[in-house]
Amino acid sequence: MEAKANGPTQKSGRVIDGPTNPMVTPLLTDLYQFTMAYAYWKAGKHNERAVFDLYFRKNPFGGEFTVFAGLEECIKLIANFKLTDEEIAFVRESLPGSCEEGFFEYLKEVDCSDVEVYAISEGTVVFPKVPLLRVEGPVAVVQLLETPVLNLVNFASLVATNAARHRLVAGKSKMLLEFGLRRAQGPDGALSASKYCYIGGFDATSNVAAGRLFGIPLRGTHSHAFVSSFMSPDEILDRSLCSSDGSTSCEDFVSLVQSWLNKIQWSKSLSGIFGETNQSELAAFMSYALAFPKNFLALVDTYDVMRSGVPNFCAVALALNDLGYKAVGIRLDSGDLAYLSSEARKIFLTIEKEFGLPGFGKTSITASNDLNEETLDALNKQGHEVDCYGIGTYLVTCYSQAALGCVFKLVEINNQPRIKLSEDLTKVSIPCKKRCYRLYGKEGYSLVDIMTGENEPCPKVGERILCRHPFNESKRAYVVPKRVEELLKCYWPGKSGKVREELPAFKDIRDHCIKQLEQMRADHMRRLNPTPYKVSVSTKLYDFIHFLWLNEAPVGELQ
Amino acid sequence: MEAKANGPTQKSGRVIDGPTNPMVTPLLTDLYQFTMAYAYWKAGKHNERAVFDLYFRKNPFGGEFTVFAGLEECIKLIANFKLTDEEIAFVRESLPGSCEEGFFEYLKEVDCSDVEVYAISEGTVVFPKVPLLRVEGPVAVVQLLETPVLNLVNFASLVATNAARHRLVAGKSKMLLEFGLRRAQGPDGALSASKYCYIGGFDATSNVAAGRLFGIPLRGTHSHAFVSSFMSPDEILDRSLCSSDGSTSCEDFVSLVQSWLNKIQWSKSLSGIFGETNQSELAAFMSYALAFPKNFLALVDTYDVMRSGVPNFCAVALALNDLGYKAVGIRLDSGDLAYLSSEARKIFLTIEKEFGLPGFGKTSITASNDLNEETLDALNKQGHEVDCYGIGTYLVTCYSQAALGCVFKLVEINNQPRIKLSEDLTKVSIPCKKRCYRLYGKEGYSLVDIMTGENEPCPKVGERILCRHPFNESKRAYVVPKRVEELLKCYWPGKSGKVREELPAFKDIRDHCIKQLEQMRADHMRRLNPTPYKVSVSTKLYDFIHFLWLNEAPVGELQ
Repeated sequence: MEAKANGPTQKSGRVIDGPTNPMVTPLLTDLYQFTMAYAYWKAGKHNERAVFDLYFRKNPFGGEFTVFAGLEECIKLIANFKLTDEEIAFVRESLPGSCEEGFFEYLKEVDCSDVEVYAISEGTVVFPKVPLLRVEGPVAVVQLLETPVLNLVNFASLVATNAARHRLVAGKSKMLLEFGLRRAQGPDGALSASKYCYIGGFDATSNVAAGRLFGIPLRGTHSHAFVSSFMSPDEILDRSLCSSDGSTSCEDFVSLVQSWLNKIQWSKSLSGIFGETNQSELAAFMSYALAFPKNFLALVDTYDVMRSGVPNFCAVALALNDLGYKAVGIRLDSGDLAYLSSEARKIFLTIEKEFGLPGFGKTSITASNDLNEETLDALNKQGHEVDCYGIGTYLVTCYSQAALGCVFKLVEINNQPRIKLSEDLTKVSIPCKKRCYRLYGKEGYSLVDIMTGENEPCPKVGERILCRHPFNESKRAYVVPKRVEELLKCYWPGKSGKVREELPAFKDIRDHCIKQLEQMRADHMRRLNPTPYKVSVSTKLYDFIHFLWLNEAPVGELQ
Repeated sequence: MEAKANGPTQKSGRVIDGPTNPMVTPLLTDLYQFTMAYAYWKAGKHNERAVFDLYFRKNPFGGEFTVFAGLEECIKLIANFKLTDEEIAFVRESLPGSCEEGFFEYLKEVDCSDVEVYAISEGTVVFPKVPLLRVEGPVAVVQLLETPVLNLVNFASLVATNAARHRLVAGKSKMLLEFGLRRAQGPDGALSASKYCYIGGFDATSNVAAGRLFGIPLRGTHSHAFVSSFMSPDEILDRSLCSSDGSTSCEDFVSLVQSWLNKIQWSKSLSGIFGETNQSELAAFMSYALAFPKNFLALVDTYDVMRSGVPNFCAVALALNDLGYKAVGIRLDSGDLAYLSSEARKIFLTIEKEFGLPGFGKTSITASNDLNEETLDALNKQGHEVDCYGIGTYLVTCYSQAALGCVFKLVEINNQPRIKLSEDLTKVSIPCKKRCYRLYGKEGYSLVDIMTGENEPCPKVGERILCRHPFNESKRAYVVPKRVEELLKCYWPGKSGKVREELPAFKDIRDHCIKQLEQMRADHMRRLNPTPYKVSVSTKLYDFIHFLWLNEAPVGELQ
């Protein structure tokens, strides 16, 4: 890895560090970006000014919204974009031997000082066709950026959206933990997932490296292996535990737990529920409590949740209570989570009553085990007592849709608008360097996004604006906005002298995202048959698109 | 990133570098591995000798085989496993403040010098339940390894298997290119995909960074944007092209192409097929040919494949032929690939005949555009003329199944076997430190894998061996092996003094994998209803599993 990739670059404003992952270098691109760069250079076209839009065509997961993420990493790449001599030597090796030397001299000079990047703020709720990034600059340079920028936005936005969807179905009151590291698509599939799930509304991660890199809160207690590594309480040698306030000390915590277990087993209100509990599990819980008396959270399903895990947990929790500690809770990692959480809650409430422990009924219940949107929804429908979800595989790999299809399309070169036609209407690109606005109604909700040509006047509050579907003549609506928000802001000004939008702090991106999600109209966000959000163009842009289209499309001949 | 992560470690044999991705550090683990480590340490159990098996329970993609990959990265992590002071400081911050200082002193000493890793060779075809890795060592240290090792194996094996499945359906004669960088799950979701797709049988990648890191052949020409960045041939200023042998020079390549285009359009055998072609496309093709006369491959679907792209390509190819160059071919990125490839082939054959160009009929046809196993299969069934496939999204994100469920289970501690029970039979673990063998029949195919206890005698060639299903009493079969292969080899000997298996060169892993796939019996590998490969245990191990099971399982009470 080049040290350079981490070297900070000073432009206007705050210094911009290199990409978080040092493997993100100018070589993290498709070979054809270099072959095209050579062909542009050979044709003397490499410095022609081109404008590309980065956008997606369809919201993921069958929904009608997407969370935009990955911008900061794009800007970090762009701010530090410079090929090392070694990288250029590798490009030379990879291209046909006939390439002229002048091209490699040119590559030495390539950077993004003449590139302008406009983008929507990271964490914003976004919709199909509207550019998330508009990248303008010398065509050869902007093409080199295409692949890494798509890579950095596609998964980031996909997983942030997935996290937001999980949050919506779980509800605001639940704690959501990302537990996906072991099943993620490689090391930074995992790190990116931790980062963007937090932006999308998760509360914490199990991934220590993500905690360190991004300051995300960390969570985790113990696994099944910890439980089965113990044989019996006889193994526990150091059995003393100081009370929470330091005033007393219990010399034999093991005996204290065992006496509580006895009381529970013979309690009237719990009679018949508990029998013999598993001794290796009991030993593991006691050991864990001795290590973390203030943070006792036990995984209770290694043997049998109701016959062993829960009574063992309660005995340890009651013993801790004698010493002034409050147990945190249990984790369920298998079985019928709705049923088991409800049964465990009943036991906690019974113990609160029977043994006079105020608050014990509220002991936290965490559920894990291959959870996803559908299982959370099913739990809600059945009724459950889960307070906290640990979600892994389905969240971080975006199992139900493993890729977002962002594309990067040329919309203008040398001030000439370009359109990409396709027999599939959804694949036709919207030409021209554009401006994009979000129009808000009187209830504070956003009504529609509208794209206009670069030089059209900005839509005004209180003005009646005709918003047109870009491709369907009959779909159009008048809107009188109460508020107009310009979506694309300048995050990398190049040589333009424009003021650069500062990259917000990580925490602020998350807050922005959560606020955005809360402000959306509920019918766009619901799981079943959500209403599509409207994305439109101005009449002027509409007319221009269709003029270009007719100009470019070949006239068929029926034979 | 710590420089240390890249620092080489000398053990027995060749030096082992750090992980390819410098973000793979001892902190790339779940927090609970550290909380457990503390609880083990606090209980004085941290040095208890534990044996963990890493295995999966079900083959991915509805198939009956898996390619094991990711071993080299695991060994690189293990060989260099050492927490820096800064990392330890972060762990201290992340654990409750009550943790004793002695634990952090202990963490300073933690490395894998007392860990032993046995593993199946990377690139081997593997099956459920058989350990891919067996990791033995101090329980606290081995637990710290659990998460990163699962992360490194899960996606690597998944994507290598996906690549192998694409190769099987495409057939040996086709060229397979991995084009997934832009849609992959983050930067090293892409790099890992490039690496492990090559191991699984792909021929090349578009990912330049992967080419540089791993020496994978690179491929790529140009995109739609390149085509639409041109307006007309008038833009082309430098029109001269030297002949292939340097003997002559064509001063106006543009005119030469145009005269060929004219000839094609008026040719008798092609009459009525071609009309006006798109001039910006023609200009782009001419420019690309001027830059890469020896490597002319054109993307022909920007406007209209048969009315514009193919005739434009043929005109440029014929002009190149006049100068002694052989055009490489075309790429189709949309539409009906079976139909278009067949129609293009007909044109190439007609031109070969009409203009006397031997071999022109064999001009290469590459297809891309959201290809996957199913579309390759459908193309085969329809009949097509594609020579080469560029495959992206579905391949690299493993879209049809985005995660492999490898687990890491404790099978022995302090020489005591451990079993993890579950009501779901497929989730019961196979206890004990084991040895694993593959038994081959007289036709050279492997018949069955068998696991035995560590100290059982090795199965012998020619001996009659009873192979038993681990959980189903009635499923058993006698086998007389013609060859016996021990699957688990020592890749990290720790202090044991055993000889360490050298990590094979990247190319050798790929060759091993391709050979393994070719040697499998066809019925295990077919897409539709493949036959499950048999995985068994020895009678002794079978009896012991069931003895332990009865011992551990609670006896139910019906109420």
